[in-house]
Amino acid sequence: MIPNNVAALVFDTFGTLVDWRGSLIQELSQFGAARGLANIDWVAFTDAWRAGYQPAMEPIRKGERGFTKLDILHRETLDRLVKKFNITGLSESDLEHLNRGWHRLKPWPDVVPGMKRLKTKFIIGPLSNGNTSLLLNMSKHGGIPWDMVLGSDALRAYKPMPEAYLGMANFLDLPPIRVMLVAAHNGDLAAARKSGLSTGFMPRPHEYGLNANRDIAPTDAWDVVGTDLQDIARQLGV
Amino acid sequence: MIPNNVAALVFDTFGTLVDWRGSLIQELSQFGAARGLANIDWVAFTDAWRAGYQPAMEPIRKGERGFTKLDILHRETLDRLVKKFNITGLSESDLEHLNRGWHRLKPWPDVVPGMKRLKTKFIIGPLSNGNTSLLLNMSKHGGIPWDMVLGSDALRAYKPMPEAYLGMANFLDLPPIRVMLVAAHNGDLAAARKSGLSTGFMPRPHEYGLNANRDIAPTDAWDVVGTDLQDIARQLGV
Repeated sequence: MIPNNVAALVFDTFGTLVDWRGSLIQELSQFGAARGLANIDWVAFTDAWRAGYQPAMEPIRKGERGFTKLDILHRETLDRLVKKFNITGLSESDLEHLNRGWHRLKPWPDVVPGMKRLKTKFIIGPLSNGNTSLLLNMSKHGGIPWDMVLGSDALRAYKPMPEAYLGMANFLDLPPIRVMLVAAHNGDLAAARKSGLSTGFMPRPHEYGLNANRDIAPTDAWDVVGTDLQDIARQLGV
Repeated sequence: MIPNNVAALVFDTFGTLVDWRGSLIQELSQFGAARGLANIDWVAFTDAWRAGYQPAMEPIRKGERGFTKLDILHRETLDRLVKKFNITGLSESDLEHLNRGWHRLKPWPDVVPGMKRLKTKFIIGPLSNGNTSLLLNMSKHGGIPWDMVLGSDALRAYKPMPEAYLGMANFLDLPPIRVMLVAAHNGDLAAARKSGLSTGFMPRPHEYGLNANRDIAPTDAWDVVGTDLQDIARQLGV
């Protein structure tokens, strides 16, 4: 059943809204070609970078490390991978440029038109592990018309910590049920529901490549299940 | 001199962007008329409400009280004034409605067109003592096309505390000089400059009424001085 008093829609970003894998593979390949970095497997590099994502946040979730922005965690993983892939000759400014590739990820084709529709009826913003500047630069770059951007550095928590979901509801001054998380990841939605948020699912079957099979279908009865953001908008009566 | 590498413009809101006084006087008068509350001086009521603003934040700035959202401070002052003006018969829901009048303040006429221009070249957002939900609801209500909304509850500080200005630069991951505060209040700009931000001034001579004379001219050589937001946009080359 679609909750009829939802006031704000908040969105997972990496994978749900932007094609991090395709965007980074393209950026890194172009950079590598321009710099004559031959024989680097940029697809493997990209997948390894993303594979470092959850483990990098884990000490922070456990309280073993103070809150640290995702940009810094991305950079730590990047530095490790540059060594591992035997990439040489990169300056500090090159590394910063590559790291900010995460600020330039491209939205899936349905995202900008879907958001323009949803924005007419709902407050829209990200609920992401990205830091505010990353999410803001991404939206300016890709044309996502957010009403507000509160990154994980405003929430001081990484999903799926309850503090992330409840902190967002608190910033919005809304009861959690009036805030709907829209995500392509069942685990994220399960954690949101546990904190009392409404839930919307749409699959991104190609997030991990054409042959991936993670999260291609809902694993629970989420409040809304759509094929993409335009379909979610239609179901929410926009 | 206009700094040529400013990336983000952040704005004082109450007075600079929205006509809090005119908006509240109108709301309160209409509410009073509808409820048959005769003989209440709503102009005096509005001015008294605003007069409670700075004193309410002062214990928080001094560290004598934990951070408390502006909505709560507004409500505490409202409750006091309702007694003082001998207003009776208001329900909890009436009081909440009145308090949320601050979420419905109307922008001055140059603000929405000016922001649409500025948004094409700069990151734009509020830098206000308002809490996030107040600023967000105000922008949805009045059509201010913010890129991001980080209220004082995200900064955990009330201007003119340096933490407010520096916290914003930190969220944006920009050196303070690349962030320009635009405000109609010289004191706010002086504090921003002390923290290293760029500064833009435009007067709002009618903020406190037609015969007020606060802050009608710049008291220092701010980086940009304009007549209104359209003029600021023109001077910033948009």
